[in-house]
Amino acid sequence: MTSKQPTIGISHLRVTVTEDFYIGPGRADLLERIAAAGSIAAAGKDMGMSYKRAWSLVQALNEGFGAPLVETSRGGSAQGGAELTVLGCEVLERYRHMQTAASAAIGPDLRALQELARHKSRDK
Amino acid sequence: MTSKQPTIGISHLRVTVTEDFYIGPGRADLLERIAAAGSIAAAGKDMGMSYKRAWSLVQALNEGFGAPLVETSRGGSAQGGAELTVLGCEVLERYRHMQTAASAAIGPDLRALQELARHKSRDK
Repeated sequence: MTSKQPTIGISHLRVTVTEDFYIGPGRADLLERIAAAGSIAAAGKDMGMSYKRAWSLVQALNEGFGAPLVETSRGGSAQGGAELTVLGCEVLERYRHMQTAASAAIGPDLRALQELARHKSRDK
Repeated sequence: MTSKQPTIGISHLRVTVTEDFYIGPGRADLLERIAAAGSIAAAGKDMGMSYKRAWSLVQALNEGFGAPLVETSRGGSAQGGAELTVLGCEVLERYRHMQTAASAAIGPDLRALQELARHKSRDK
């Protein structure tokens, strides 16, 4: 995930939903990895984060949204299992859809800039 | 510009145009301020940046794109006047248009998430 290859197109999209909640690529990746790994610790490790950091991000997500997006099987901060709630799945899906929709929307301008960059570099 | 009030909607959009060039909100603001102020020093100061930092950002923009987006009246790093080239104006306009187009494209998902956040917070 921390590949150094640049992504052409939208490389960072942060959407502020309410005064207390935003979602960006890092938070979305964390939710996705929690869903896949069934554990906050494993998801964080995948992303090169300490458990403490991953856990505090999950808390920020849950508190900011005003309802849990991630639920732990032991309910506390113990390193037990974790999964996305229905709400967490919807937030993640909506974010992925926003990335797709925004990428499509910027397509014409992106291609125009790429053409300009190519021609101008060649003219030098 | 460094207001602490959160912007609802897209609060950060970075677009990677080529392997060597991306544009995001900070770079776009810098271009806009250079156009307005006619000076890299004044534009940087507006954004709380040292002249050195603003100048190095301008260099990164010019070199990354492969052609100048900003031209200084003395041609060097002296603290003289500066303006956007025709190319710089086009890059800035295209970026602003991408922000508008992407914001429109995410509208339905954003509103759905805002509704969810409002209802769920109330249910607690």
